[in-house]
Amino acid sequence: MQNNLSKELLANLRDWIEEGRDTSIQEVLAELHPADIGELINELRREEAVYLYRTLEEEKAADVMLELDEDVREKLLSSLTSREIAEDLIENIDSDDAADILQDLSEQKLEEVMALLEDEGQASDIIDLMTYEEGTAGALMGKEMVRVNQNWTVAQAIREMRRQGEDIEHIYTIYVVDDKGQLLGTLSMKNMIFASSSMRTTIRELYKDGKVRTVNVNTPADEVARVMQKYDIVAIPVVNDNEMLVGRITIDDVMDVIQEEADKDYQLASGISEDVEYGDSILTLTRARLPWLLIGMAGGMCSAYFIGVFDIEANPQMAIFMPLIAATGGNVGVQSAALVVRALANQSALDETLWQKLAKEFGVGLLNATVCSLIIMLVSQLFHFEFALSLTAAVALFSVIIFASMSGTWIPLTLNRFGIDPALATGPFITTTNDIIGLVIYFSVGHYFLRTFGESGFSLF
Amino acid sequence: MQNNLSKELLANLRDWIEEGRDTSIQEVLAELHPADIGELINELRREEAVYLYRTLEEEKAADVMLELDEDVREKLLSSLTSREIAEDLIENIDSDDAADILQDLSEQKLEEVMALLEDEGQASDIIDLMTYEEGTAGALMGKEMVRVNQNWTVAQAIREMRRQGEDIEHIYTIYVVDDKGQLLGTLSMKNMIFASSSMRTTIRELYKDGKVRTVNVNTPADEVARVMQKYDIVAIPVVNDNEMLVGRITIDDVMDVIQEEADKDYQLASGISEDVEYGDSILTLTRARLPWLLIGMAGGMCSAYFIGVFDIEANPQMAIFMPLIAATGGNVGVQSAALVVRALANQSALDETLWQKLAKEFGVGLLNATVCSLIIMLVSQLFHFEFALSLTAAVALFSVIIFASMSGTWIPLTLNRFGIDPALATGPFITTTNDIIGLVIYFSVGHYFLRTFGESGFSLF
Repeated sequence: MQNNLSKELLANLRDWIEEGRDTSIQEVLAELHPADIGELINELRREEAVYLYRTLEEEKAADVMLELDEDVREKLLSSLTSREIAEDLIENIDSDDAADILQDLSEQKLEEVMALLEDEGQASDIIDLMTYEEGTAGALMGKEMVRVNQNWTVAQAIREMRRQGEDIEHIYTIYVVDDKGQLLGTLSMKNMIFASSSMRTTIRELYKDGKVRTVNVNTPADEVARVMQKYDIVAIPVVNDNEMLVGRITIDDVMDVIQEEADKDYQLASGISEDVEYGDSILTLTRARLPWLLIGMAGGMCSAYFIGVFDIEANPQMAIFMPLIAATGGNVGVQSAALVVRALANQSALDETLWQKLAKEFGVGLLNATVCSLIIMLVSQLFHFEFALSLTAAVALFSVIIFASMSGTWIPLTLNRFGIDPALATGPFITTTNDIIGLVIYFSVGHYFLRTFGESGFSLF
Repeated sequence: MQNNLSKELLANLRDWIEEGRDTSIQEVLAELHPADIGELINELRREEAVYLYRTLEEEKAADVMLELDEDVREKLLSSLTSREIAEDLIENIDSDDAADILQDLSEQKLEEVMALLEDEGQASDIIDLMTYEEGTAGALMGKEMVRVNQNWTVAQAIREMRRQGEDIEHIYTIYVVDDKGQLLGTLSMKNMIFASSSMRTTIRELYKDGKVRTVNVNTPADEVARVMQKYDIVAIPVVNDNEMLVGRITIDDVMDVIQEEADKDYQLASGISEDVEYGDSILTLTRARLPWLLIGMAGGMCSAYFIGVFDIEANPQMAIFMPLIAATGGNVGVQSAALVVRALANQSALDETLWQKLAKEFGVGLLNATVCSLIIMLVSQLFHFEFALSLTAAVALFSVIIFASMSGTWIPLTLNRFGIDPALATGPFITTTNDIIGLVIYFSVGHYFLRTFGESGFSLF
């Protein structure tokens, strides 16, 4: 099964929709994976999308719905009847996906859909899942899992599992519970099949007890991701405050969390508000980017103000090294902040303390500052710049690098302490801050040195 | 099982190692997950690490080895005998992990270890895996998998699986092959157990055929990750050029690839060479950061040159808006490049073409440029700046934003076409380029406007 997506296929589908050639459409879509069909629908106009969606057979349509971009999905859902949503869609998907989808419906439509659901167990599962706050294990978990009582025999368990597991794609783990529903341990399918010498062995004799790693419904999603990644867990059981097993989170859900976290950090570091991509409209893209540019502009205007205050007209030669000072300050700040953001994302109890971090960063800053300011001193003397100017540039650069290292470390750590995303401190924010501070340092140093050592004449080369 | 790591524990372990209190060490480590023990060993000195490692029982020691930071692992390995590596370590881990570890050994030690391996099947698996180029599916795959012949009965298959599956932690999928070893289809454990009415049913009657998504041994790792993520595949079979099944890649291997890709992009965007983290030494950290700072400095010196050429002394007021122009150009460039890098990472056949991308980016640039230059015109007039200077700033800003949008899109796309990582175009590289070009545009515009509209006097406020 290869990836057959192409622009020609998309164009063909559009024609066939126009002409109502359902058989051609169905023949082509039958060969495609739901993820591919979703990608095609993302490119269609609303009416085309609805038409195509309705040609799909029920179960596949449900899978396709889960693959759509969020905005496309919302549009498509608003064109479907409540009965279509309830009977064709929701009853064919897992409770956690259902909860995600229903969250986007209007309150009235939500009520209609819930009333139409025939499987009451599923309905109550969905309502339960919708109560958890977004970004917690509760909101991430699915209710579908295989749960067996420790007192069952293997034969009983297999019978029950056949019933419970019907709708579950991958049975990673079988959860063993007591009569109250409290989680006792886990059992892999492999162990159940291979370890039991007879079908009458009880589950109690087979499972590993006492060592199950669980997360609470309120554990934040990124902490869940960290635990599953660190301990290589493919499916983690979720328990409520009474240690009752209420759901499970699988590795593919967590992979999405990891990807989103990484994307978010990357976008913040690049000065883009969350959640845009190339496919979005020009207006959306501009809305995500303009605010950061304005922050940078505001910084630029502050710089303009300081340059005025420091009377550039009296010492116009000072302009020469302004870009170098500002750029280096910005670069150092971003480096420091990025390292802190990554360290915070992979926090460990064995990590260095704040003071150890600052001390280390001071060391790195000192090394970088020494090398950079020696180079600038050397180069500017080679090019016969005025000595006072060279000295100003070197001393200012040294101070700026040290300062930017410290602030780049300290700012994200402080944001994090106050519960603000430390990644905010990367990108345009820190560059701008360091631009301004760099210039203030540079002009202050220059003001003193040029007055002290300054020659009256001024020649660039 | 909770996370019990703490600095006290680390200190205690150090004391016990010093005093040779093996029982205390073993008691504590028995309670910890290999990943946690790995984290502790990462903090120890070499001799301490070796001592601690040797107190672990064989299988756990092998798991711990896989969790160590690469540099710590190399040091530890060089302190172990070839016999320890072969008999205690390699024979207890999967072939793909073994290949990774052995790659770090000296040629001589590698030969010694290979000669000591008792399981010849494993030895040849390892040798096979070591031939694949890093970053390909072949280097990522494991040889351990469950493979059944289509002509076997369920009873036969279970017997075979019990043998093959002994060392496999998760049997995600059972691979069905013909007599030649060609992959015919897959079967989940669940289906085999639930779907067969009798133990004498043959596998041929149970498996799904024809629709198995595979990757070739030479498929790049990031492409494997993209496919598995898109199609929600937990374990993908790897075939050679003759369509023979040679291995499988599981989702946890791929999760590491995704994390590494994201980390790499993030580090490049922040101006840090690959693969450093806060725990590294000051020298390592400086080595990863200094080259980027030097790139920025070189840019700053080019800027200094142009400022000299454009004779800042004659128009010192031009210095006022230099930081604003440079910063905005840099910010716009980074935004554009970051969006391209992400789009390339999630490439699809339905994507816009290069020209459509450039056209869209031009649209976004136009919008941003209009807003930003209007603001700068307005603000600088409000503050009674010279009209010619305000106009210069506004026109230059407009041009710089458009230019930076275009180059920020075009540069990573071009790098990618020539097989260079497009993420290189984010971070200091693009900021520096746009700094310089921004200033050149600004001074060129200023040169013309100040001569044309310039007042003779110059007042900042």
